Amino acid sequence: MSPSPWQKTKERYAYQGWRSMLVRTFLQPDGKERDYDVIENGAYVVVAAFTANRDAILIRQFRPGPEQVLSSFCEGYIDTSESPEQAAARELLEETGYQAGNIQYMRTLHTAYSTEKRICLLATDCTPTQAPSGDADEFLEVFTLPLAEFKEWMQLDESAFYSLDITLLALQKLGW
Amino acid sequence: MSPSPWQKTKERYAYQGWRSMLVRTFLQPDGKERDYDVIENGAYVVVAAFTANRDAILIRQFRPGPEQVLSSFCEGYIDTSESPEQAAARELLEETGYQAGNIQYMRTLHTAYSTEKRICLLATDCTPTQAPSGDADEFLEVFTLPLAEFKEWMQLDESAFYSLDITLLALQKLGW
Repeated sequence: MSPSPWQKTKERYAYQGWRSMLVRTFLQPDGKERDYDVIENGAYVVVAAFTANRDAILIRQFRPGPEQVLSSFCEGYIDTSESPEQAAARELLEETGYQAGNIQYMRTLHTAYSTEKRICLLATDCTPTQAPSGDADEFLEVFTLPLAEFKEWMQLDESAFYSLDITLLALQKLGW
Repeated sequence: MSPSPWQKTKERYAYQGWRSMLVRTFLQPDGKERDYDVIENGAYVVVAAFTANRDAILIRQFRPGPEQVLSSFCEGYIDTSESPEQAAARELLEETGYQAGNIQYMRTLHTAYSTEKRICLLATDCTPTQAPSGDADEFLEVFTLPLAEFKEWMQLDESAFYSLDITLLALQKLGW
């Protein structure tokens, strides 16, 4: 049996907030209907950013899901009228103060139970050009790690680093 | 400024279903309270599984979030009284029909706006021992790819493969 798209027969909001929850009903291959709770989320960029010296540009931030500080590459929603590349350059500059020398699209990732699109971009030859402005209430810390150190660190539980997917794409693309 | 945990002042369910939505209120470093929508989810295992010949053992399944077929390593919730290793062995056998020769814990990953724990394990020397049983309504397809092919394929948009994080951990751990 090769899987194919299922017919959606119903959809409603169970909750609408900053995040929203959809209940979608699908007609399964066996003819039965089944409801799935799906998290509604939009398209956002994730930016694997490096300086010309191959330092990874990273952030640390308290996160309300695990209620702990996690580290990651910078991320942000795409504004209307922005391309993913423009959003990546803007978010990187706002959140970290670094300007990207070059930005390229890598991949769009999906998850099973969310409508999100995680658009992965690579920013190279980044240079610090301003103090991070960001949203005043993001309370994030910017830090950098030399490539060799980054590659060790990101694999540790203690790093609480969750951008491993885009890291794989970036390191393979760069041949690092 | 180095980020530190924030004090949680309130928490309530906005929706309770198969997935649930929490609204958590935190006291920010600036003394202001702010609400965050957080998706409640539990601990689940993800199993990067390979045969003795280094074939990756993968699944394809229609997913209600993006409403398309995605591919991944096999995943599943941990039953009460199970260790992550036991859950990984059980899920792998149920979903794919492969028995793991060896299972080892690699890493627990978190996400910013969900309570989930994504527990990543590595299963090696896996052998096909039974027909996949799985849940009768999972409608998934099992397939394998030789290592070299897997490494090319997983980077393509067309693969719709979303287990890149655990793939990075597995390939680094195995030195492949």
